Amino acid sequence: MKKYELLAEDIEALIASGTIQPGERLPSVRQTITARHLSPSTVFEAYYLLEARGLVEARPRSGYFVKSRPALRNEPQAAKPAPEPREVVVNDLVLEVLGAGHGLDVVPLGSAFPNPHFFPVARLGRSMGAALREMSPAQLLEDLAPGNAELRRQIAVRYMGNGVAASSEEIVITSGAMEALNLCLQAVTQAGDAVAIESPAFYGCLQALERLKLRAVEVATHPRDGIQLDSLEAVLKRERVKACWFMPNFQNPLGALMPLENKRKLVHLLSQKGIPLIEDDVYGELYFGVRRPPPAKSFDKDGWVLHCSSFSKNLAPGYRLGWTAAGRYARTVERLKLSSTLSVSVPVQLGILSYLQEGGYDKHLRLLRETLSAQRDVALQVIAKHFPAGVRVTQPEGGYFLWVELPPGLNALELQRLALSQNISIAPGQLFSADQRFSHFIRLNFGHPLAGQLGPALKALGRLVHALAKSIRRD
Amino acid sequence: MKKYELLAEDIEALIASGTIQPGERLPSVRQTITARHLSPSTVFEAYYLLEARGLVEARPRSGYFVKSRPALRNEPQAAKPAPEPREVVVNDLVLEVLGAGHGLDVVPLGSAFPNPHFFPVARLGRSMGAALREMSPAQLLEDLAPGNAELRRQIAVRYMGNGVAASSEEIVITSGAMEALNLCLQAVTQAGDAVAIESPAFYGCLQALERLKLRAVEVATHPRDGIQLDSLEAVLKRERVKACWFMPNFQNPLGALMPLENKRKLVHLLSQKGIPLIEDDVYGELYFGVRRPPPAKSFDKDGWVLHCSSFSKNLAPGYRLGWTAAGRYARTVERLKLSSTLSVSVPVQLGILSYLQEGGYDKHLRLLRETLSAQRDVALQVIAKHFPAGVRVTQPEGGYFLWVELPPGLNALELQRLALSQNISIAPGQLFSADQRFSHFIRLNFGHPLAGQLGPALKALGRLVHALAKSIRRD
Repeated sequence: MKKYELLAEDIEALIASGTIQPGERLPSVRQTITARHLSPSTVFEAYYLLEARGLVEARPRSGYFVKSRPALRNEPQAAKPAPEPREVVVNDLVLEVLGAGHGLDVVPLGSAFPNPHFFPVARLGRSMGAALREMSPAQLLEDLAPGNAELRRQIAVRYMGNGVAASSEEIVITSGAMEALNLCLQAVTQAGDAVAIESPAFYGCLQALERLKLRAVEVATHPRDGIQLDSLEAVLKRERVKACWFMPNFQNPLGALMPLENKRKLVHLLSQKGIPLIEDDVYGELYFGVRRPPPAKSFDKDGWVLHCSSFSKNLAPGYRLGWTAAGRYARTVERLKLSSTLSVSVPVQLGILSYLQEGGYDKHLRLLRETLSAQRDVALQVIAKHFPAGVRVTQPEGGYFLWVELPPGLNALELQRLALSQNISIAPGQLFSADQRFSHFIRLNFGHPLAGQLGPALKALGRLVHALAKSIRRD
Repeated sequence: MKKYELLAEDIEALIASGTIQPGERLPSVRQTITARHLSPSTVFEAYYLLEARGLVEARPRSGYFVKSRPALRNEPQAAKPAPEPREVVVNDLVLEVLGAGHGLDVVPLGSAFPNPHFFPVARLGRSMGAALREMSPAQLLEDLAPGNAELRRQIAVRYMGNGVAASSEEIVITSGAMEALNLCLQAVTQAGDAVAIESPAFYGCLQALERLKLRAVEVATHPRDGIQLDSLEAVLKRERVKACWFMPNFQNPLGALMPLENKRKLVHLLSQKGIPLIEDDVYGELYFGVRRPPPAKSFDKDGWVLHCSSFSKNLAPGYRLGWTAAGRYARTVERLKLSSTLSVSVPVQLGILSYLQEGGYDKHLRLLRETLSAQRDVALQVIAKHFPAGVRVTQPEGGYFLWVELPPGLNALELQRLALSQNISIAPGQLFSADQRFSHFIRLNFGHPLAGQLGPALKALGRLVHALAKSIRRD
């Protein structure tokens, strides 16, 4: 990490702990130069970085001030899980709702994907072309399952940088994280088993449970910290849980980030009981803080964590390249992969490998994070101003989703239909639980619309929420 | 079809029906010109084509003669199926055996893939590069499941050419045929169901049944004609079969081609009973006759046939691009795809589409077929000369597999170990049934070794078979 990044991290920690309060002034550049023995440019770069991340703001001739986060007091409350394990039937609704949001003219606040324009699409294409020119035909067969050896090594090296000791032998290349997660789930369960999931949960997780005929046991979450460990412990006492499927980093839809200590306790708890943890970490690289939050896998000593991720959300959407470091289940997953889809496209593997080898991935990630962070701030500001007063919204420190709690009684599916008629898609809360409980919540994607679209679409949505809320009060 | 191809087809039909017998002379070029009102070049081209396909041979100053097929009397007998449905446990053996065959120095007679050098690898790479240069970033999301619309249209057009009326809406793009077959099987069965399969069967089919906890009911086959309809009818009377998984064109491992009339009866029988037919047609383009054999799907009126194929065996190995035209189950398959692997890599879809649009696929296929057909002839000749007298071997009219029946008592797994020690892989017959019944059979791939390797490897293998056969007689 560079000097200015270290400084920014220190200041961020002071803000997070409340040592420097919202509205307070940061130490002046001159003070900091003296106190830390740093060059002026280092200090400026650190302050610029904090500004880019939306943590501080410059006031002309006054210096840098910690920004107040107006919506902080309005975040949704911790979600209470459904008490009983239940069969999952969401697929129809998910497909219907997501299918309705397609179309070129729609502002896709309901999309699951970030905007592909934010990705190095042209450079990736050139890397792929170069890789294919250099490829020997024999490679087309050699690099089938479990995947190209050098690509797996590169992924293992990145793991090491995040505190995860995963050898390249542990890694199986998959068709996106979705396949990785599905194979892991298959590796550790049988039809009828109970699987602990978050409440609210990513609908892809619900669909996977439905397809494999598994029962969902919901665990309570906090909108900022994710999984509540006491709720999990209670669930584990009550039910014979065969696996957990959690997203400790920037959970979809909450954006919650589990504190490091909670991740440690989570892995300890599950390892003791011999319960595998399927860790969905597709948003881990999209942090707005100083450093990538380590995955729960970084605390895994005995191979109970099946870590899944991909390049789809941070480098190469549509390429469908993911992987899992599946711990003690690596060989089982590899075999399931072989007998279901055989292997990931070799040209895709070689294209992404070639991009990684040329360098530039980390630089792209920095730009992407800055873009997403800036769009989050815009979205929060517009919502604070244009949505009714009682509306609550998360303030994620990464990813590109907001989870919005609308006035009780307002039906998100109705809002979705109204919004679509104005060419705006949203993801209604009904998609995020087995019992469609979050009916007055919506998930908004601030990372898909281009900057110019985001504000106007949210304002229009705010008007619809106002109108619906009014009609409810009248009833 | 061109004039010379029509003429060749007519002559082939005369040979197939026995009107012109092996050893007989074809009508002279001059006679044919007069009789058919054709140009000399058309007639020559037709005769060259028949020669390339191994049906006739030129004798200096005498004209063209129908070739005799020395091995015809030595084909294996019709296989009798296991009497009871059974759980499938083959995965371990398959992975162990196939894993052992990897390595650069091994002549891969045991491989499932044709030699990638026989494919337009460089041109495909250029097509992919061109497609990625022209792609808009938005396409990376638009062309996710069920797949790029124009690619599906191109596949539908090819279907039409083979007598199949499948609209592009019926087609779901998949990660190779393997995923297509697996999704189709999932769409029409539940754990515990009985599925009718061929005996011997492709081990990928057995692995899929094992993974989905289905029971296999074997149907008798003839090494030339495939599925025996009377055996199938008996099976359907005896068992509650929920689906059939068959390969009517160039079955793996037999290379059997179901006669057109049998395909018609098969589809009629299953449609009447409402039993879905999963048709694996990955070798259909690799015919050595005049015309692509139509799939069973061409007789499907009510959507009971789920036709699966891919470009892996005939254009783009390692790209992992397949599809299914799943009839009445198309939407179910699409949904299973969405919730398991989401979509096929968009760059791969666009790369193959670009190749198809540029033209040249059919020319490549012609060359590939000629190569494979010539290598089949070499393989059959070497086996006839260098294997023990009692050995029986199929004479497939397409694909790239031979199914060889060794002297009874000879253990194919033992032969496999011996062969590997001489850097030759083979696929032992044990892989091709749920009860490892075909223990004195082997599958040989004549389409992987380069021409110069094929003869010597088969000769070496023949010596090993001789030695093993001798040691059995001594016991």
